[in-house]
Amino acid sequence: MKTMFFIVVLILSALSESMAGDPDILADFIVPQDNTTIDGNFFTYTGMRVLLDAPEAKTFKVLKASMAEFPALNGQSVSYAVLDFPPGSVNPPHTHPRASELLFLVDGTLEVGFVDTTNKLFTQTLKTGDMFVFPKGLVHFQYNGDKKNEALAVSAFGSANAGTVSVPNSVFNTTIDDGVLALSFKTDVYTIQKIKAGLAGKS
Amino acid sequence: MKTMFFIVVLILSALSESMAGDPDILADFIVPQDNTTIDGNFFTYTGMRVLLDAPEAKTFKVLKASMAEFPALNGQSVSYAVLDFPPGSVNPPHTHPRASELLFLVDGTLEVGFVDTTNKLFTQTLKTGDMFVFPKGLVHFQYNGDKKNEALAVSAFGSANAGTVSVPNSVFNTTIDDGVLALSFKTDVYTIQKIKAGLAGKS
Amino acid sequence: MKTMFFIVVLILSALSESMAGDPDILADFIVPQDNTTIDGNFFTYTGMRVLLDAPEAKTFKVLKASMAEFPALNGQSVSYAVLDFPPGSVNPPHTHPRASELLFLVDGTLEVGFVDTTNKLFTQTLKTGDMFVFPKGLVHFQYNGDKKNEALAVSAFGSANAGTVSVPNSVFNTTIDDGVLALSFKTDVYTIQKIKAGLAGKS
Amino acid sequence: MKTMFFIVVLILSALSESMAGDPDILADFIVPQDNTTIDGNFFTYTGMRVLLDAPEAKTFKVLKASMAEFPALNGQSVSYAVLDFPPGSVNPPHTHPRASELLFLVDGTLEVGFVDTTNKLFTQTLKTGDMFVFPKGLVHFQYNGDKKNEALAVSAFGSANAGTVSVPNSVFNTTIDDGVLALSFKTDVYTIQKIKAGLAGKS
Amino acid sequence: MKTMFFIVVLILSALSESMAGDPDILADFIVPQDNTTIDGNFFTYTGMRVLLDAPEAKTFKVLKASMAEFPALNGQSVSYAVLDFPPGSVNPPHTHPRASELLFLVDGTLEVGFVDTTNKLFTQTLKTGDMFVFPKGLVHFQYNGDKKNEALAVSAFGSANAGTVSVPNSVFNTTIDDGVLALSFKTDVYTIQKIKAGLAGKS
Amino acid sequence: MKTMFFIVVLILSALSESMAGDPDILADFIVPQDNTTIDGNFFTYTGMRVLLDAPEAKTFKVLKASMAEFPALNGQSVSYAVLDFPPGSVNPPHTHPRASELLFLVDGTLEVGFVDTTNKLFTQTLKTGDMFVFPKGLVHFQYNGDKKNEALAVSAFGSANAGTVSVPNSVFNTTIDDGVLALSFKTDVYTIQKIKAGLAGKS
Repeated sequence: MKTMFFIVVLILSALSESMAGDPDILADFIVPQDNTTIDGNFFTYTGMRVLLDAPEAKTFKVLKASMAEFPALNGQSVSYAVLDFPPGSVNPPHTHPRASELLFLVDGTLEVGFVDTTNKLFTQTLKTGDMFVFPKGLVHFQYNGDKKNEALAVSAFGSANAGTVSVPNSVFNTTIDDGVLALSFKTDVYTIQKIKAGLAGKS
Repeated sequence: MKTMFFIVVLILSALSESMAGDPDILADFIVPQDNTTIDGNFFTYTGMRVLLDAPEAKTFKVLKASMAEFPALNGQSVSYAVLDFPPGSVNPPHTHPRASELLFLVDGTLEVGFVDTTNKLFTQTLKTGDMFVFPKGLVHFQYNGDKKNEALAVSAFGSANAGTVSVPNSVFNTTIDDGVLALSFKTDVYTIQKIKAGLAGKS
Repeated sequence: MKTMFFIVVLILSALSESMAGDPDILADFIVPQDNTTIDGNFFTYTGMRVLLDAPEAKTFKVLKASMAEFPALNGQSVSYAVLDFPPGSVNPPHTHPRASELLFLVDGTLEVGFVDTTNKLFTQTLKTGDMFVFPKGLVHFQYNGDKKNEALAVSAFGSANAGTVSVPNSVFNTTIDDGVLALSFKTDVYTIQKIKAGLAGKS
Repeated sequence: MKTMFFIVVLILSALSESMAGDPDILADFIVPQDNTTIDGNFFTYTGMRVLLDAPEAKTFKVLKASMAEFPALNGQSVSYAVLDFPPGSVNPPHTHPRASELLFLVDGTLEVGFVDTTNKLFTQTLKTGDMFVFPKGLVHFQYNGDKKNEALAVSAFGSANAGTVSVPNSVFNTTIDDGVLALSFKTDVYTIQKIKAGLAGKS
Repeated sequence: MKTMFFIVVLILSALSESMAGDPDILADFIVPQDNTTIDGNFFTYTGMRVLLDAPEAKTFKVLKASMAEFPALNGQSVSYAVLDFPPGSVNPPHTHPRASELLFLVDGTLEVGFVDTTNKLFTQTLKTGDMFVFPKGLVHFQYNGDKKNEALAVSAFGSANAGTVSVPNSVFNTTIDDGVLALSFKTDVYTIQKIKAGLAGKS
Repeated sequence: MKTMFFIVVLILSALSESMAGDPDILADFIVPQDNTTIDGNFFTYTGMRVLLDAPEAKTFKVLKASMAEFPALNGQSVSYAVLDFPPGSVNPPHTHPRASELLFLVDGTLEVGFVDTTNKLFTQTLKTGDMFVFPKGLVHFQYNGDKKNEALAVSAFGSANAGTVSVPNSVFNTTIDDGVLALSFKTDVYTIQKIKAGLAGKS
């Protein structure tokens, strides 16, 4: 019986990971299969409390509250990320395939930008209290140009699982053939290998 | 010509208010008709900066960044509200007809609750750093039970225009017939009139 | 083996209750897991026949044909309710979180109203044969002001599970703290307790 | 100015006919451009009152309350049709491209059926008070086999404009080439022409 | 254990057939339950290679690459069909209930047409290299009028399972009552029976 | 009057570009505002005929049939692109923010790959007649490794305007600050400038 239960749970967790969707649901909320007692705790996420006493970050750091960390978000079409930028740090160019991002800068200043599908770059320097919206699926980045002060932002997404595609990692930190990349970026294989080594921490 | 231009602008602003929707759009972003220069400013909202130097609120206060205040959100399926709770204040029972709410308590403590469609109440006492999700369309409320300290929350919505239906105002601060309300709440007309007077500031 | 089958059926019925949604489906119809013979009966609902010989209702009564009662509606984005109003009865203020309601008054007269998100009340007195649409998620009510004659209405919803949030029950017939409610409705705890007692049938 | 106004209205009515969609809207309701006073009447449809004193129909008749007749339905994802079947009459095979149909038989008996995409026929004989759901986009028909009594049904659709594709009219009452149809139906041109003549009222 | 595994697989394949939908998914792709190794092969479909060495078709033939044949399409909202028209052959009037069809004529010429919900016929004679779009849910057909040369088309659909409702088969190759059909098509039972016999290959 | 007409057309074309969406429409098709005669030609696209007599491409080339080129696709959720790969050419890493891509290789061989949001690379070598699906929003590329023979592919998208975000162009062919990019790709400014120069054709 235990084996069977294990298989069923495995299958159902796979299901809840793979079949869930952001369209309107036909219920108030979606109860995970292995959850028999739904109370206020189910709708609460405490995973951000660590931020309160966290030592200052040394590198750019993201803390997410999406469906994976907070299952009650399944079917509710919303999630959060907290972005922590030490002085001079960058959140490298990336896209979110399943949602727009609405960034709220709660501390510091931040250089932000995105590129639309006509290849036009839109940039802004945000001050504390400002918001900026990065449209769905477009390449964007954030940079804390201040050399002394941290910047802290809260980002909201209109999906419980917006997903992130990091450009440096997707393109240069997988095993895509060096020749294909050299051709794509109109450069030589040496340059590609140099970037790959840097991203892999081997440069 | 001026008249014509006025009429067209009027019609189009009506259109952009009434016809827009949260489904996926067929463009990177939606440009308002009267906007000829789209640059980084269009995607930036500075209306929250007032919070930085604001004196402490005396009553519960909401500051919204939805499609009405921040037109670039049109079609991006996301918006924000900042909720400011002085000690002992309440955000009365209400619903958002077009989105779930994901509340992030950035300061203080907060009593929260919602009632599902089976009439079950879910409550929680949130600490600083906690999140709580209020499913779409359900009645919910927040209360700062702390008699000394303010509570401050940022709420994200998976719609550019979640909308708010305040229960006290919808039900007791419109001209719904007193007899109909007395019948609905299984009470007498006197009680209805007393609540109405209180909400109208006439009690 | 029986135990296992029971667990699997349990899980799957939970799934079909909680994961189904109103978006377009990728099949003609959705077959419940425990249903092996799909024929014309599956697409037929006979639960409304009781209305034919029913004695006149003494209080307001709703008979629903939604996904719960009629599983074939799952994925078809439509459902019905039949509303029976004895003379002088009311369907108290409520919302449907997942659909608009299109009411068709088939007998009698009916006072109807809803309040939009700008807190504007829209009312109408319907005559037999009239229709009225209550937009999605807004507070609305119906009242049969006729002291002698019943009113009968059929309501269609654009969801297989529109859901109902009753204002009196959600707000005053759960255990929301009396003080929070008094503050919310700008009244005293005594008035809140009086309404609660009335709705609980204890007044 | 009048000409201009006319053109603008023309364009906007075209817009409201062609661009509107059934996805969730970002407003409580959609106000038509030429409508300056929105009150309870806007949400009311009285076009069904004619049914009350209507003489008995001689042929099958449909009365619709969709977005075209009742503009407030725009964006609310729901509509109605009233179907009147004199004894022995038929609603010929047809599909609704944009919604499922939930039929409620309020008087008489009715033979109904639909064919799924695996070409399986599902039929039922409905009694007064019964409901039947015809899934979206599938060919279906209704027939009042009773030789003496009328049948009356109310059908709900999960779209404000479900649309109707009549099989006899689409296929045999347009100018599709006789040879193409003969080939399609594996019959001769004479048979095609005979059916066409019958449907055109020329047989 | 084998029995259990069989039941679970059975249930899950039923699930994947019946619960999947075309709305946006909350994952990059949907992994079938019985699939433990997802690699490039999962995203590849080789079932069209047979076309390369296929002898010339004698009758109209469709080869589909939809969710049933190519499971990776589940949740990706796109599919293909390859249509092979020998000289003088027809693809009889039909509808796709869940998607529009975008036909690309890669060889030969083709007569195409569809009928909209106002019963207006739109036709065109396509040349090699032309595209034609058949809107969702409308009756359409294609005919290769060339008596010597084959026509070959590739059709794309905006759904992983567009579905097909063949008019001749749905209406005349199921057991819908002959009398109902005669009444529907305003013809006699003899004509209906003749068409039925032809389609059943018995004429 | 001419000026007015011009303005209205301008506004409406802006509208049709910016407000259109891929959700289900409430009409059979969407008629552009400046189009008074809708016939078969409106639903036909002849822009691919140029492929028939085109000389062999020297560099990778895409020919699109999306909403911009073929307005009838608006609201039909489907579009095409034809991809022409000379020997040894590449379609550089890119994403489509609004649709999955279903590639059909009609001639030659092709190396293809995509990277999911867990940074896993999926690759395949396609033979003539093979299909491959690139999930929505993920980075993908195609490369014709054959040094002698062209490869030709037809790609279908489940949106009328899938959009394309080219990684090399978005990231290295806009004016994103060199220092920000160097930091992002963990390399030096010199390397960034070298890649930028190559892509700008200045290396």
